[in-house]
Amino acid sequence: MFNRELKVVDCTIRDGGLINKWQFSKEMVRKVFQAVSASGIDYMEMGYRASAKMFPPTEFGPWRFTTDEDVREIIGDTQTGTKLGVMVDIGRVEPEDIAHVDESPLDFIRVATYLKDVDKAIWLANHVNEKGYESFINIMAISTVNDYNLAEGLRQIQNETTVSAVTVVDSYGSLYQDDVSHLINMFNENLKAPKTGFHGHNNLQLGFANTIEALEKGASYCDATITGIGRAAGNCPLELLLAWLKNPKYSLEPILQCIQDVFVDLRKQIEWGYLMPYMITGMLNEHPRVAIALRNSPEKDQYADFFRKLTTPEFISE
Amino acid sequence: MFNRELKVVDCTIRDGGLINKWQFSKEMVRKVFQAVSASGIDYMEMGYRASAKMFPPTEFGPWRFTTDEDVREIIGDTQTGTKLGVMVDIGRVEPEDIAHVDESPLDFIRVATYLKDVDKAIWLANHVNEKGYESFINIMAISTVNDYNLAEGLRQIQNETTVSAVTVVDSYGSLYQDDVSHLINMFNENLKAPKTGFHGHNNLQLGFANTIEALEKGASYCDATITGIGRAAGNCPLELLLAWLKNPKYSLEPILQCIQDVFVDLRKQIEWGYLMPYMITGMLNEHPRVAIALRNSPEKDQYADFFRKLTTPEFISE
Repeated sequence: MFNRELKVVDCTIRDGGLINKWQFSKEMVRKVFQAVSASGIDYMEMGYRASAKMFPPTEFGPWRFTTDEDVREIIGDTQTGTKLGVMVDIGRVEPEDIAHVDESPLDFIRVATYLKDVDKAIWLANHVNEKGYESFINIMAISTVNDYNLAEGLRQIQNETTVSAVTVVDSYGSLYQDDVSHLINMFNENLKAPKTGFHGHNNLQLGFANTIEALEKGASYCDATITGIGRAAGNCPLELLLAWLKNPKYSLEPILQCIQDVFVDLRKQIEWGYLMPYMITGMLNEHPRVAIALRNSPEKDQYADFFRKLTTPEFISE
Repeated sequence: MFNRELKVVDCTIRDGGLINKWQFSKEMVRKVFQAVSASGIDYMEMGYRASAKMFPPTEFGPWRFTTDEDVREIIGDTQTGTKLGVMVDIGRVEPEDIAHVDESPLDFIRVATYLKDVDKAIWLANHVNEKGYESFINIMAISTVNDYNLAEGLRQIQNETTVSAVTVVDSYGSLYQDDVSHLINMFNENLKAPKTGFHGHNNLQLGFANTIEALEKGASYCDATITGIGRAAGNCPLELLLAWLKNPKYSLEPILQCIQDVFVDLRKQIEWGYLMPYMITGMLNEHPRVAIALRNSPEKDQYADFFRKLTTPEFISE
């Protein structure tokens, strides 16, 4: 009934922070961590690790940097089976921002990259690996690359790293199930040692459905966030994933309690989820930034006007 | 790229009316009709037809009855290629409520039934057929019946009616893609003349994904509503379906315009869509009525408490 190899990666704080520049209180992050830990989730991404030289801490909250000290404060004396980690972006973190694993409360580091930067991602993944962390590579904006280049990049990761998994990231939320199936097959064919992961977005209300598709086609790692929180349309909701998985090691109740205690109020303060502008950028295979800008403007609900603008020849040829 | 046999059935007013007892203004219904018609949708269900003896018109709005007169007023002088119809429930409509098709602006009537009432549904479908309407049967609460009884019911419909299609209705919103695949295969195996239809609900954020699954497995009719409006978690959103379908006969823009003009404000007045209580009844294969009651109570956001209540032995054995 269930896949024993499957690993769930919670990225509630990391991806959710894209909405509010990671301005979550320590109390909130602690509640999320305790719920994720109590529900038996395998991995939790606590935020991004980034250089404070590049992001002014006056503007960005603590989970843009996710210092080892802050993570220790969140864990407190909680005993957890959940592996903790951060995401790093190429060019936005410096080697000195990452201590050796023996001096850190973190277990893993995920490197986010565009396919064109795969050489830099390989360097960074190997660097964190040498410092003792379990490493991953996430390939963003996967709906914009062609198969030929992707296969070459995957073979390079296979040959030049020891990452645990390489993750398909549907940044634009524009993949349908058949696209997911094709990509997972391609990843599995080109990767011998690393497993395949999947990170869906919900622009087309397919974040969860595409995650099911990926897992049924042989992905071994999948990302999810509580209530699907995340930039724009958000992600695969963790509560749906746990309800679908038959693995008795996961428990849904702590996640529902956390939604009741934390996310009901949070939703009154910040916005995420399926909304027309995100659906429109998803269906057009566009980055959500134009839709996010629309939602922050007085024209936030002028969906048909937005659709006409994005489908005019002038916009397309930009 | 596209399936020429496929027919889209809009049920925005009929299913949406389950939220507010069909209290939609004629102006609103006219805008929806004009958008559906301009976008090239094949069928539009304008409401339920029901006996005014059973539903006090002081409590229920016009689309609980959907009189021929009201439909004529909505159509006005609009030329439309969309077939118009109503849904009828067994035992809630009388033969005298249905005029001969020559005296009606309607083209089709869909009979909604539970599997146990299939004999009555067959009688009613044949009755409307004799009056000249195109007829359909929708089998509700499909997630609660067993294959043996279902196959028998389908063969009976095949042998005893001339309905255009029999529709799988996921009333509890509890089907996953593999369940949909199984049911569509079963319907197609047991129905020779009638086509297969699919009506999804969004409790598990799978309304659209399950519709894709149904169509890819050979369903020919699919139901959708603008923005997914419908009781509780709602339905497959029409805008997503049109964006996915490659058939150039459909146009998305009128639907987006209608969302902008009508549904932005409507959403401030009534509630539908993915919410935790509906997700919980969906995952437990329960009727959404207990979740709807919760949403109308002061405990509306006490999701974990609701989950614990529904999974206690006391509740289960009720």
